[in-house]
Amino acid sequence: ADSCPRHINHKMSPPLFIHFLFTDLLPAMDGDTKTMTFLQEVVDILMAYIVESFDRETKVIDFHYPNELLQMNNWELQDEPATLDDILISCRATLKYAIKTAHPRYFNQLSTGLDMVGLAADWLTSTANTNMFTYEVAPVFVLLEYVTLKKMREIIGWPDGRGDGIFSPGGAISNMYAMLLARFKMFPEVKEKGMSSVPRLVAFTSEHSLFHLFVIFQSHFSIKKGAAALGIGTESVICIKVDESGKMIPADLERRILEAKQKGFVPFFVSATAGTTVYGAFDPLIAISDVCKKYNVWMHVDGAWGGSLLMSRRHRWKLDGVDRANSVTWNPHKMMSVPLQCSALLVREEGLMQNCNQMHACYLFQQDKHYDLSYDTGDKALQCGRHVDIFKLWLMWRAKGTIGFEAQIDKCLELSEYLYNKIKDREGYEMVFDGKPQHTNVCFWYLPPGIRYMEDKEERKKHLHKVAPVIKARMMEYGTTMVSYQPQGDKVNFFRMVISNPAATFEDIDFLIEEIERLGQDL
Amino acid sequence: ADSCPRHINHKMSPPLFIHFLFTDLLPAMDGDTKTMTFLQEVVDILMAYIVESFDRETKVIDFHYPNELLQMNNWELQDEPATLDDILISCRATLKYAIKTAHPRYFNQLSTGLDMVGLAADWLTSTANTNMFTYEVAPVFVLLEYVTLKKMREIIGWPDGRGDGIFSPGGAISNMYAMLLARFKMFPEVKEKGMSSVPRLVAFTSEHSLFHLFVIFQSHFSIKKGAAALGIGTESVICIKVDESGKMIPADLERRILEAKQKGFVPFFVSATAGTTVYGAFDPLIAISDVCKKYNVWMHVDGAWGGSLLMSRRHRWKLDGVDRANSVTWNPHKMMSVPLQCSALLVREEGLMQNCNQMHACYLFQQDKHYDLSYDTGDKALQCGRHVDIFKLWLMWRAKGTIGFEAQIDKCLELSEYLYNKIKDREGYEMVFDGKPQHTNVCFWYLPPGIRYMEDKEERKKHLHKVAPVIKARMMEYGTTMVSYQPQGDKVNFFRMVISNPAATFEDIDFLIEEIERLGQDL
Repeated sequence: ADSCPRHINHKMSPPLFIHFLFTDLLPAMDGDTKTMTFLQEVVDILMAYIVESFDRETKVIDFHYPNELLQMNNWELQDEPATLDDILISCRATLKYAIKTAHPRYFNQLSTGLDMVGLAADWLTSTANTNMFTYEVAPVFVLLEYVTLKKMREIIGWPDGRGDGIFSPGGAISNMYAMLLARFKMFPEVKEKGMSSVPRLVAFTSEHSLFHLFVIFQSHFSIKKGAAALGIGTESVICIKVDESGKMIPADLERRILEAKQKGFVPFFVSATAGTTVYGAFDPLIAISDVCKKYNVWMHVDGAWGGSLLMSRRHRWKLDGVDRANSVTWNPHKMMSVPLQCSALLVREEGLMQNCNQMHACYLFQQDKHYDLSYDTGDKALQCGRHVDIFKLWLMWRAKGTIGFEAQIDKCLELSEYLYNKIKDREGYEMVFDGKPQHTNVCFWYLPPGIRYMEDKEERKKHLHKVAPVIKARMMEYGTTMVSYQPQGDKVNFFRMVISNPAATFEDIDFLIEEIERLGQDL
Repeated sequence: ADSCPRHINHKMSPPLFIHFLFTDLLPAMDGDTKTMTFLQEVVDILMAYIVESFDRETKVIDFHYPNELLQMNNWELQDEPATLDDILISCRATLKYAIKTAHPRYFNQLSTGLDMVGLAADWLTSTANTNMFTYEVAPVFVLLEYVTLKKMREIIGWPDGRGDGIFSPGGAISNMYAMLLARFKMFPEVKEKGMSSVPRLVAFTSEHSLFHLFVIFQSHFSIKKGAAALGIGTESVICIKVDESGKMIPADLERRILEAKQKGFVPFFVSATAGTTVYGAFDPLIAISDVCKKYNVWMHVDGAWGGSLLMSRRHRWKLDGVDRANSVTWNPHKMMSVPLQCSALLVREEGLMQNCNQMHACYLFQQDKHYDLSYDTGDKALQCGRHVDIFKLWLMWRAKGTIGFEAQIDKCLELSEYLYNKIKDREGYEMVFDGKPQHTNVCFWYLPPGIRYMEDKEERKKHLHKVAPVIKARMMEYGTTMVSYQPQGDKVNFFRMVISNPAATFEDIDFLIEEIERLGQDL
């Protein structure tokens, strides 16, 4: 179609843009050509950035401190319009200082990498510029959400993929939806009458439960935020003990449920985690479901990070029992590398979301519309408008097939096993917990030679605590790679390596280890 | 830069894609060229769609009923990968049946139109593929959010633009944030102890308050949804009377606050609306702020729809008193035509969001990071990861300047005044309320000749109720234009015209009226 070679690296925009303004673009009369030329210029900038991002010779980040960065460009907003040339310059400047999240050595988050089909789909989504409220304004996207949610429920194992669900702005909101549903299911009057009409409710989650996207000292984060928002209160979130590898202990769950009941509280929600943020641990879902069933408590599975392992025949046993859950959070924007944001809440009971979130039983939501209203999803959402997050997942699924996602996930797990095997007995490394990681999380300390044989344990610990932050700061200053670190409980700062980046290879894992040693040996 | 003419209308993808799969794209070895060719193909499809969308000769929608649409393409997800050729076909099919939201005659929503600079910015955002949690992962975007929120607060009129704020996934979530803050400000213990620790709280909003994005019979929608979620309960949302033009009556607000206090309830939140969804009414903010001050109640202004009028020197008086608010919702994705989603919550008090939403006072959020942590915004958000919604607004602001947004907004208001003047005395039209619209909302009934002189008022009303739905269905089937309708209170279905589409002209308004008459005259 296009026989002209494109020079993706040209950095200069055509001089004509110096004189052009946004008013020259569509909907301006005869704005077609200028619009296409302008958009093509932007696309050329983006293409150059993409190709560069995958190149290991480029930096992951050109890091500057906030005050420096504020001065590196004129970021202020003005009364007067800028030229389109200035707009192109702003685009280049923005990308120059951005993190290259597609870079094969970017490991900093649970969401890494950049999928080309997903990106194309996101560009299309922006161009379609609509929202998910009704079939009327998003006919195709609403159908694709329907098709995809059904497929995900089939993979969870619910009969014929029946149930309900929604794509939400992220794992924390998906978990909040689940909590809302659980509360409404037990006490429907809470919707009208509020929390003062119900007994004191308590929710349960593991000490290690997922904190979305970032790892912090304080765990059980999104469940607590949800409880605070919902008027349940963070004190009513009870943290259940975990074993050494970070899995919830079902016996402790049962003990704490009984304890709460004895105090006259009402246990209404258990959030089991499939893939904790730090350890990548999978709670034992079957045993937890037995406890939930026994005490008639809603079982939620927070699979924001680990849910994607359901796509892998080799690894899905780690979520055995997930089909017993009442609701499941599953974020394709993490392990499946769908562009941000893409988070699904799947619900086993049909109709409940609608009843919980719609604002009237005798609702007059334009019943006189001329098409089947069951496709209008606005009623079951907490939000009113909803961003279109479905198309990128759907198009990627189409391009890869289920087996393509499976291969991608299996490869990441293989890489993390490689990393684990490489460092577990290597001099200067200590693992944070024993045993092969369940997910792609590998948690470890690097001990520089100088502190490797320190006798004073406390002194050693104090030193070790400072190692990871310094190495990380150096990584960012050199821009060679990024990996996260954090303390946890009484454990001082350790590296938490995660692999969700489909661009990563065995060589990149080797590089990471060499880089940690290069940057940390003098500490 | 590009000397090759691009044939934007070519519908065929290069035959080579028939044999290519996603595995041929980056991060594949030597995937650069294929990736760029593939992305360029997608961009060509998008460009053709864009140019077509602005063409009045094309349909706004190629409408099909859900069951038909399900059969018009193979939308199912498979185990096996599809070829890239199939991916391009799916992109074309998706756009073929999409609503052309950029079309100059698309008036269906509060969010219409497609801004070319905003689109370019959204493409860049997708390519950068990161989130707003910390400076570490989104250095530029975090700074731009800081710069833009400050500018918006200056426009609101808070001294030196001081205060706080956040971009959230939409107006309903922004309003929910405001409610959370108001509750926390009055009763900080609610965060830990939940609603059972506080007296019964009540919130107030007008009968007509904003329902985001869509118009429904049931009003005060997002505030009620928020109250249900937050454990306050919908019964604790008290609806204040409005005058004929839809503005809240401050005396009724005061009466209902006193009534609530007499019952022992605690008024904690008043949501005044700046631009109701149906009537476009602006509540009298100064009078409302006096009441709020007198009774020490948090004053929120829901300016999701009308907040943008602050950019217009001619129209900003409609929000006089907004600077007295404690918080303001303002959605640039509505009247400013920023691509979806882009909603801001602005907060007058500094530090409150952080205290309300962070999960620990002695929080260990990696205090050993090597840069200024005040730019890490994750702590003040309810969500954990947050989509990057800032860049499109920032880049558009840069391209237009404040005066460019002003001109765009003024023009939409001028068009609505033109519509109002055109139909207010025209045969066959009745206005839903008297007087010039305050926003771009024009609410009217079209009476086909057959019912214009019906004597039996009830019979006439029954007929009239069916007119708008039938005309709307015909509009969609012909695909010529789209405008929304709804009943309200005891008023039967009427058209609610809104203009936020920068592509609309006087001729498009003329067309709308002609089209309503053409499609409705036989009813």
